[in-house]
Amino acid sequence: MRTIEWKNGIVTTVDQTKLPSQTVLLKMTSCGEIVEAIKKLQVRGAPLLGAAAAYGLALTAYHSTTEDKEKLIEELSVSAQLLKETRPTAVNLFWAIDRVINIVSQAKGDAVTVRKAVLEEAQKMALEDIKTNWKIGENGSHLISEGDIVLTHCNAGSLATVDYGTALGVIRTAWKEGKKIQVIATETRPLLQGARLTAYELFLEGIPVRLITDSMVGYVMAKGMVDKVVVGADRIVNDAVINKIGTYTIAVLAHEHGIPFYVAAPKSTFDTNRSAKDVVVEERDVEEVASFNGVQIAPEGVSVFNPAFDVTPLKYVSAIISEEGVLSPNGFHKLSVES
Amino acid sequence: MRTIEWKNGIVTTVDQTKLPSQTVLLKMTSCGEIVEAIKKLQVRGAPLLGAAAAYGLALTAYHSTTEDKEKLIEELSVSAQLLKETRPTAVNLFWAIDRVINIVSQAKGDAVTVRKAVLEEAQKMALEDIKTNWKIGENGSHLISEGDIVLTHCNAGSLATVDYGTALGVIRTAWKEGKKIQVIATETRPLLQGARLTAYELFLEGIPVRLITDSMVGYVMAKGMVDKVVVGADRIVNDAVINKIGTYTIAVLAHEHGIPFYVAAPKSTFDTNRSAKDVVVEERDVEEVASFNGVQIAPEGVSVFNPAFDVTPLKYVSAIISEEGVLSPNGFHKLSVES
Repeated sequence: MRTIEWKNGIVTTVDQTKLPSQTVLLKMTSCGEIVEAIKKLQVRGAPLLGAAAAYGLALTAYHSTTEDKEKLIEELSVSAQLLKETRPTAVNLFWAIDRVINIVSQAKGDAVTVRKAVLEEAQKMALEDIKTNWKIGENGSHLISEGDIVLTHCNAGSLATVDYGTALGVIRTAWKEGKKIQVIATETRPLLQGARLTAYELFLEGIPVRLITDSMVGYVMAKGMVDKVVVGADRIVNDAVINKIGTYTIAVLAHEHGIPFYVAAPKSTFDTNRSAKDVVVEERDVEEVASFNGVQIAPEGVSVFNPAFDVTPLKYVSAIISEEGVLSPNGFHKLSVES
Repeated sequence: MRTIEWKNGIVTTVDQTKLPSQTVLLKMTSCGEIVEAIKKLQVRGAPLLGAAAAYGLALTAYHSTTEDKEKLIEELSVSAQLLKETRPTAVNLFWAIDRVINIVSQAKGDAVTVRKAVLEEAQKMALEDIKTNWKIGENGSHLISEGDIVLTHCNAGSLATVDYGTALGVIRTAWKEGKKIQVIATETRPLLQGARLTAYELFLEGIPVRLITDSMVGYVMAKGMVDKVVVGADRIVNDAVINKIGTYTIAVLAHEHGIPFYVAAPKSTFDTNRSAKDVVVEERDVEEVASFNGVQIAPEGVSVFNPAFDVTPLKYVSAIISEEGVLSPNGFHKLSVES
């Protein structure tokens, strides 16, 4: 299931805020629509944010009416800025924008050439993401054993990427290789990406999945119900993995129970020149916690803290599964993996 | 705010499933109605379950038309059995029923005497619960310092007891003594007792409270936002505290961050002749997790695990705050408390 596609100047994706009860396709023809979809989390997931940002720039280029190269570059620069202001934490967004803008700055020729180069780069990046995820799946599957129960958090699946997924890519590959695994998906409050997206993806494919609330992680680990944890990442810095709020809680619990804790993420998620202290952890609207589907659950006016991400120091991470191999969190060098 | 009251053969309480958006009073005149209210969680919280069960037996006694003592005892025995079958985990329910039935079995005289004895015992137990909570508050407040940020889980407040609360009793007393504390309340999925009840109780009284999702506990601890944890208990056995699902996760995180983890509970919650392995952890309907306010959030038919409680080994518990004093979890002897 490919999450985002380009056809004749239209970018099509599924509105992830409506799943699984409704499958609403978004057909976007401007970068502004991409910007809005990212802000509303209709499009989410670190690798998908990268692809969507690149397509956003492609929409600007494709629909621009200027024949002046400098004017086009200026329009792309404005779009790039708007995209960068959508969400601060996942680094893939910035990586993708910088990559496209770099292509633009190097493009020789006229506006037509630039336009073509931007679109080609966006398409190339989307295809690369799929191949990267296949490779992550292959590399990570070596870490999953027959019969394992794998706990995952949030959604690092097809819906978080162009296709296949990172953490769910590992699970998919292990399953395709015939390993009879089971998955425990945390619902992932406040926005329930685990319940709505991960459970949905796995259930559709017949991979056994069991849903729990975030508060149950300790209990299922203590009961011996979890063999491995695999999650995605929004940014990997030189001292921590930054991922969906709740990840750190799970990592500490895995550590306490001696359960391997793996992070599956493409190299575009790595930002190893920075430390956790340099990263802005997005705080989102209090209504995400205080109400649900428009129904107020907490007393009106109560104070709420709503960080969208948390910070897991690398000491809690057993290994990072990238397209280049399984990496040690201690120096990011490749670990030999026995298959 | 007293949560449960008896007047002329009518037991009045508030429907806790409707708070905070609606304040619906339940006026119950039979033990069967109490049984239903407990099953539906309209009445919940370990100490309150004890008081409600005693009042359930009082309703049976009060409204019985028999003049035959043995017949009345038989009716009470049937009610006791129905009450015991409502929920398996909180021990206060069983403790309260056994206490009333013991009064019945010792009662001399006729049916009128038994009837009177049951009602008197139920009233006495309700008053005792309030005084017990005041005492727990007083004992526990010594552990809370000026300016502390105290994290609590689920609702161990007035609404979990006849009045005042256990964990919230400690917080209330510290606040009344003038300590400028703040509270972080976890929302407590699946049924959101933290968001709906704890945030509501504290917000009404002007005690500063901030609401988070259960998944945020690790992050707020890592950020240094939590000085102490105080929770209630549904049953304290000789090797563990059994309390609302999510408690164990918080206890492990508190341990990892060097944050004191206190359990506030009356002696009626103690069941120290048993171990955790002897206790049935109630599993509740999957719909509590799979849907929210009647709206399906997970794919239809997905597997769900929904334990209502978890088990926190005593090694994670810094102290137990009871009406008799602050107790060591290692042998349950009194610790000297400096005030």
